[in-house]
Amino acid sequence: MPFELTQDFIDQIKQAISDGNDEFVKNRMEELLPQDIASVMYELDIEESKYIFTHFDKKLRADIISELDESYRVEFLEHFTPDEIAQYITLLDSDDAADILSEQENQEEIIEILEDQNEEKAKDIKDLLHYDYDTAGGLMQKELIRANLNWTIEKCVEEMRIQAKKVGKIYSVYVVDNNEKLLGRVSVKKMLLSDDGTRISDIYDPDVISVDAFMPATEVADLMKKYDLVAVPVVNNQGKLIGRITIDDVVDVITEKAEMDMQAMSGLSAQVEEEDSVWDLTKARLPWLMIGMCGGILGAQFLGLFENFISLIPAMAFFIPLITATGGNVGIQSSSLIVQSLARDPSFDEFSLYRLGKGFLVAFINAIAIAGLVLIVNMILGESLKLTFVVSIALFSVVILASLMGTVTPLILNRFGINPAVASGPFITTMNDLLGLAVYFLVAYTLFKI
Amino acid sequence: MPFELTQDFIDQIKQAISDGNDEFVKNRMEELLPQDIASVMYELDIEESKYIFTHFDKKLRADIISELDESYRVEFLEHFTPDEIAQYITLLDSDDAADILSEQENQEEIIEILEDQNEEKAKDIKDLLHYDYDTAGGLMQKELIRANLNWTIEKCVEEMRIQAKKVGKIYSVYVVDNNEKLLGRVSVKKMLLSDDGTRISDIYDPDVISVDAFMPATEVADLMKKYDLVAVPVVNNQGKLIGRITIDDVVDVITEKAEMDMQAMSGLSAQVEEEDSVWDLTKARLPWLMIGMCGGILGAQFLGLFENFISLIPAMAFFIPLITATGGNVGIQSSSLIVQSLARDPSFDEFSLYRLGKGFLVAFINAIAIAGLVLIVNMILGESLKLTFVVSIALFSVVILASLMGTVTPLILNRFGINPAVASGPFITTMNDLLGLAVYFLVAYTLFKI
Repeated sequence: MPFELTQDFIDQIKQAISDGNDEFVKNRMEELLPQDIASVMYELDIEESKYIFTHFDKKLRADIISELDESYRVEFLEHFTPDEIAQYITLLDSDDAADILSEQENQEEIIEILEDQNEEKAKDIKDLLHYDYDTAGGLMQKELIRANLNWTIEKCVEEMRIQAKKVGKIYSVYVVDNNEKLLGRVSVKKMLLSDDGTRISDIYDPDVISVDAFMPATEVADLMKKYDLVAVPVVNNQGKLIGRITIDDVVDVITEKAEMDMQAMSGLSAQVEEEDSVWDLTKARLPWLMIGMCGGILGAQFLGLFENFISLIPAMAFFIPLITATGGNVGIQSSSLIVQSLARDPSFDEFSLYRLGKGFLVAFINAIAIAGLVLIVNMILGESLKLTFVVSIALFSVVILASLMGTVTPLILNRFGINPAVASGPFITTMNDLLGLAVYFLVAYTLFKI
Repeated sequence: MPFELTQDFIDQIKQAISDGNDEFVKNRMEELLPQDIASVMYELDIEESKYIFTHFDKKLRADIISELDESYRVEFLEHFTPDEIAQYITLLDSDDAADILSEQENQEEIIEILEDQNEEKAKDIKDLLHYDYDTAGGLMQKELIRANLNWTIEKCVEEMRIQAKKVGKIYSVYVVDNNEKLLGRVSVKKMLLSDDGTRISDIYDPDVISVDAFMPATEVADLMKKYDLVAVPVVNNQGKLIGRITIDDVVDVITEKAEMDMQAMSGLSAQVEEEDSVWDLTKARLPWLMIGMCGGILGAQFLGLFENFISLIPAMAFFIPLITATGGNVGIQSSSLIVQSLARDPSFDEFSLYRLGKGFLVAFINAIAIAGLVLIVNMILGESLKLTFVVSIALFSVVILASLMGTVTPLILNRFGINPAVASGPFITTMNDLLGLAVYFLVAYTLFKI
């Protein structure tokens, strides 16, 4: 049932555009949803996109613009006048309108045009522009249905008929007093099933969960996820109802947070994707590579202290990759378990003895297993007995230390307000490489010199 | 406004339980939502949990059970008879009921009791038990409002009054023909705003997106996310309406998928969390550590071939950590970009020349930067000129090769139906360690021997 984009379809559309076959373009595209039209447009060049765009009515054009990726949209809208952009924006929900407007360089100009066309909408959008994108205010829309406590269902439905054109999806009617203070909600289901004469005050649910406009977006997401909400009302610090957040925007927040964590873990310093320019990709990749490089050079300097030692027992060098890789792997495992706990409950950043103790126990078992196995394997392979012991003792210590580092680092980063997922990336690996080398050579030095 | 669990609150509740202060327990707990009561219960022992549980009415008890974590729930329900469990299950939506039932050992017994109490519900739940948890069928619930094409709004509202008790949230009314075939939907908003005499056939929207019962859960999630849906109807292969999936369940799928990717990247072979037992955590961590260990031992064997070489030029060993770490970091960056693209659009697994070419270009720039910088630093630090060149040439080659590996591996894994995120973990690192060592010593061997 859902649309699937094929190369064939793109070729047909491209052909039709170059032939000027308007009929074909119109027929094939009209049955698509805005999201699908957007994905077709990504495969065309800007001129072709503009051409098919002209075949749709204004509301559909507005919806398509709202569905485009930010970077594509900015480029696409450069081909339209402020007047045209204002016409599309006015047809969108206030949150989508504010998002698009915030990307435009000629913001002021567009707002002025909007103010002439639709004063109320312009005011709503201007209000929303004040909030950071990563707060409740940045996610909310102004469109919602509000009912006074003293209304009847009939009066409420009447009012809804007036307001409904402006509001996309309705999940709840929010109940306010004469001062616009949020008192509760009535579900649309309840309204539909109640008699027309029923008073809102008799059926409303006063236990409504609301959020403050400055609550971080990720907290709003956690809240809506926990309580299975499809919409949540937003209030200002006097408790007045100023907007609502719908679940579709929150789903985007959840996805974005997961992508950010993944990028932090993989050593990308900025949010990039494969489609970005070579330059953006390089800028995102180089910083952590540089830090890893500094770690590697420091490691080389450290090993330089043991030059004679390595020259005498070159087999010492054979196990350097084993030691550093094990430290890296253990550290990332530990840190990502902590990152996951923090993601589920960010307040749970206790350095508890229980947590450290349990981490230690798991590390201890892993350390015994790894060090023991390597001991056996090295004895079978006929390495020198002394070296075999050095490697296994070092491995044991590295597993314990890397595990401790992996546990503590994300907790510290979290305390300082840095995304703890960074600790699961090159940072932990670099630190553990150095730690591992230090432990290995100190153990060797102690054992061989006695 | 939302509840925040404090140690103080837990202490008070524990004290009240041991004092048998029922009044206090009831007053403090009753105002909480099921999700919050569940989080309080995690902090109590089972006996205390059972005690506070008895203070709630049956519907709330059922909701609490449905909100508990699976592992806690299994343990908790061991303290209840099949008869009691059946009583709670019958009060829940069919999807939650089926989830709970599927965890119970005495499933058959509970179903028999359910069949006596509520035949229709029992049938719905039994139907749902047939579907895998990671398909549309495993996410859907049987509860939904269906309306015949020929009904009027009035008739529909009348039917809804009868059905509404059974259905939690209503977003849409699904329109079917006389054979239960899905024809379209009517939003609750539209029903509320239309006159009672209006026919469903005049106002319904035939362009409804539906899913097949066997569609993978992650595809359902992508679909609902893309089209901003809060509910989607599920049809069987004859197009008959058999259930619906609501957004709250899909949000859980999205979160779980992100957690799975993160765990795959961090070298955990099973889905674990910090709270799991030491044994479970060890089982999840050891397999990848073992594979890393095998890689390390292979690396040691390889380096063993160059024993005399290292003994002669011990400085060769100094740069082993730099080479392996850089390879690892580059590989993970490349693979996670591909994993991200695949997560957004799983069908986009083309080995296109453009993709490889662009990846190569980025790698080339990074390689020049890293190798060049290390060249300069090593010259400043006064390393031998020959070694300096060997290290930089090796670094250059390693960045290019690791980038290629990181690009190709996830694409191959995806083709074989393996979670490509595995490629961003210890697998890529281990492979790149070996590759890096090979390149480094081959370059050195070639340059020093000539």
